[in-house]
Amino acid sequence: MYGNLAGWNDTIAAIATPPGIGAIGVIRLSGDKSFEIINKIFPSKDLATAPANTLHVGYLKHNNTILDEVVVSIFKAPASYTGEDVIEISCHGSPYIQEQILNTLVHIGARLAKPGEFTQRAFLNGKLDLIQAEAVADLIASNTKASQNTALKNMRGGFSQVLKEMRERLIQFSALIELELDFSEEDVEFADRKKFLDLLTEIDITVKKLLDSFRLGNVIKNGVSVAIVGSPNAGKSTLLNTLLNESRAIVSEIAGTTRDTIEEVININGILFRLIDTAGIREHSTDVIENMGVLKSKEKIQQADIVLYLFDVNTTNDEEIISFIKEIKKQNNNIIFVANKTDRSNEKLLQQKREAFEDAIFISAKMNTGIEELKEKLFDSVANDAALSENIIITNARHYSALKEVETSLHDIKKGIDNNITGDLLSLDIRRCLHYLGEITGEISNEDMLDYIFSKFCIGK
Amino acid sequence: MYGNLAGWNDTIAAIATPPGIGAIGVIRLSGDKSFEIINKIFPSKDLATAPANTLHVGYLKHNNTILDEVVVSIFKAPASYTGEDVIEISCHGSPYIQEQILNTLVHIGARLAKPGEFTQRAFLNGKLDLIQAEAVADLIASNTKASQNTALKNMRGGFSQVLKEMRERLIQFSALIELELDFSEEDVEFADRKKFLDLLTEIDITVKKLLDSFRLGNVIKNGVSVAIVGSPNAGKSTLLNTLLNESRAIVSEIAGTTRDTIEEVININGILFRLIDTAGIREHSTDVIENMGVLKSKEKIQQADIVLYLFDVNTTNDEEIISFIKEIKKQNNNIIFVANKTDRSNEKLLQQKREAFEDAIFISAKMNTGIEELKEKLFDSVANDAALSENIIITNARHYSALKEVETSLHDIKKGIDNNITGDLLSLDIRRCLHYLGEITGEISNEDMLDYIFSKFCIGK
Repeated sequence: MYGNLAGWNDTIAAIATPPGIGAIGVIRLSGDKSFEIINKIFPSKDLATAPANTLHVGYLKHNNTILDEVVVSIFKAPASYTGEDVIEISCHGSPYIQEQILNTLVHIGARLAKPGEFTQRAFLNGKLDLIQAEAVADLIASNTKASQNTALKNMRGGFSQVLKEMRERLIQFSALIELELDFSEEDVEFADRKKFLDLLTEIDITVKKLLDSFRLGNVIKNGVSVAIVGSPNAGKSTLLNTLLNESRAIVSEIAGTTRDTIEEVININGILFRLIDTAGIREHSTDVIENMGVLKSKEKIQQADIVLYLFDVNTTNDEEIISFIKEIKKQNNNIIFVANKTDRSNEKLLQQKREAFEDAIFISAKMNTGIEELKEKLFDSVANDAALSENIIITNARHYSALKEVETSLHDIKKGIDNNITGDLLSLDIRRCLHYLGEITGEISNEDMLDYIFSKFCIGK
Repeated sequence: MYGNLAGWNDTIAAIATPPGIGAIGVIRLSGDKSFEIINKIFPSKDLATAPANTLHVGYLKHNNTILDEVVVSIFKAPASYTGEDVIEISCHGSPYIQEQILNTLVHIGARLAKPGEFTQRAFLNGKLDLIQAEAVADLIASNTKASQNTALKNMRGGFSQVLKEMRERLIQFSALIELELDFSEEDVEFADRKKFLDLLTEIDITVKKLLDSFRLGNVIKNGVSVAIVGSPNAGKSTLLNTLLNESRAIVSEIAGTTRDTIEEVININGILFRLIDTAGIREHSTDVIENMGVLKSKEKIQQADIVLYLFDVNTTNDEEIISFIKEIKKQNNNIIFVANKTDRSNEKLLQQKREAFEDAIFISAKMNTGIEELKEKLFDSVANDAALSENIIITNARHYSALKEVETSLHDIKKGIDNNITGDLLSLDIRRCLHYLGEITGEISNEDMLDYIFSKFCIGK
């Protein structure tokens, strides 16, 4: 399919395990010459004649020097990850030894793989479509249950299937309409306009649902930023500790991402919430509202997905709360307000506050009451369980913008039918719609786009 | 052999690849229940009935949730690394997913492996002796050709073989001497004292060679520290750059080692030289000799394996050089002195200096002349090619101190024979010698010693 792409016939090699010292390291080799190359340095037997999907222990030797004792895994084309002959060398986890083996492989005929090149080959060889290939990168980057699930779902082809079906049904109509063009003098209509409009509406609904899911998808992939605001005596640090004690997230460092402002991360039902402290407010306690003007806090509040406003239910009067909320709303409309220190309150005061602030959540961070409710509120404000478990969720900005184009072209097609435009013009709009649908799965792609997509992968995948 | 050790019958699990995000991660499982455990989460086929040394692609599922799509490698007892049933799961390189799989394995019957526990089991199951097991850790930590080679040599059993032979021959004599004790009333000598003395001498020579090799072994394992001293105008930084440009070493960070004083590392013929700048001298240029008194420099010079004294051949007069060398020799006797800036010299001056300082190496760091000679000098001062390539080299301090004990007991045995002591006393000395020989290979070991040795391994090995 891409036989004339540069470097496409090379046998590629890369270290597939993370950098650093470990018990083992894995080096991957893929291409026509995989067996020829490994046989040059694995003298104990001929691996080319060994059966597929087998493991072989032996020494790697080059120029009469032993490189390492390794285990070699053999996968044969087309039943491999890339669709080509694939060799995986499991060696001792010394970075020096891994480098040496990799250098030797390059010396005897392999080429260093580019980021994502193994997966790119899998795509080009038809082992994966583009959505599935991108899901591989998402899966590797996943750090919560929800991100793992959506990546696995996409990897298994659920989303691809939906798009494929839509595209096939559109293609049928497109063919009929183009057929009409051949008979344009006779003014026939092979494509039933009514049925076509029904199909367009159906596709439109699906596309809208997918587009809507992107908000959740983005949250799943990138987490939710929560700016916590409130005067210093409101109990912010106690709340942070209470939230963290229960559910400190295991979040791995991703090279290249700096998250200066993120203080702590919690995982609620598989979604990451990044709790951002608004330092400006904490430091100057005398005039809270005035401090809202501090640029830094303002920015944080503007950029946050959710603003969590915490107040001491016992000492904050209603006017203060109302004016505070008013100030915040100038920056960000997505507020959760939380009344703290209910343990120090009497029932009468609580009753009054509950009536005054119906939407508030009443907690005692110290006594760990109301925390579950707060977490539910946080979770519900961005996701719901049903959406998470059942539906297809768009997590990829590329898919989102292509679907946006699909939506636009769908509307253009509809408008065209309504206005009774000629078949050749209609056909153009349909082709545009098909183009963007195909671009998502990679049925339509170009080298630049592929290079861009796979450049974001890690080396060795 | 160690059937009653705590936890010895458990099936153990660990992540074997380095921490962090990579293309793939590998999780290892070893023990009686490996197949029982993997079968619980690998629904697509029964791996217990699959042939040894085969690869299986499929999904891991737990509680109806997909964990990941993985490749499972199967090794069956006793033909595995540990000698037990071993499963290796190659999953997507997300730390979150790896954690999840590991937690699931623990949840369904495995135990988290301790550092080095896989190799410890290999040792306890007789797959490796202790020297070979320790060589695995050395191999993983190796960062030069020389350290890799000695580790591989030890892993292949060269050193073990030498010790084993010595020990077996000693045991034969020991048996004969103990036999004599049974016939002590009859005053017979089964063990030919002459031949025994010959054997002892032979062993003594071998042990001495091994002990001598430790200096080189230590250099191979830990590198050579070179303190560079000289006045600021001598061209230290130019020399550093010239040395580094050609042969910057790929040295991996080893967690937990802090090397504050090390500035740069170069690799000469597989040996690491750590070039240490003596800042004290660099900063105060007026009175160099006086500055030698600065405690920090003094310490660095004392601790260095080699002191490299660099001077500007054109501007430093003989007296200054001589007094400088004298000062250094008070701290460290291992000096290489290097005359720099020969490019700015005339032949006459050079001639005079060459005669005055026969041992000096004349270079121009700027013009890159004499650098190879300097590197050879550095290399020759700690190693030689023949020793590196042919002989067995001790790199392990544990082996060294045990061999020291062997040496002492050999001398005691000899002295005993010379003094004609009784067979039972002689026998005690021989047993002591045998004990220390056996301790090196692990034929004699105790739990504490093993725990200590393997605790220095990485998790998953």
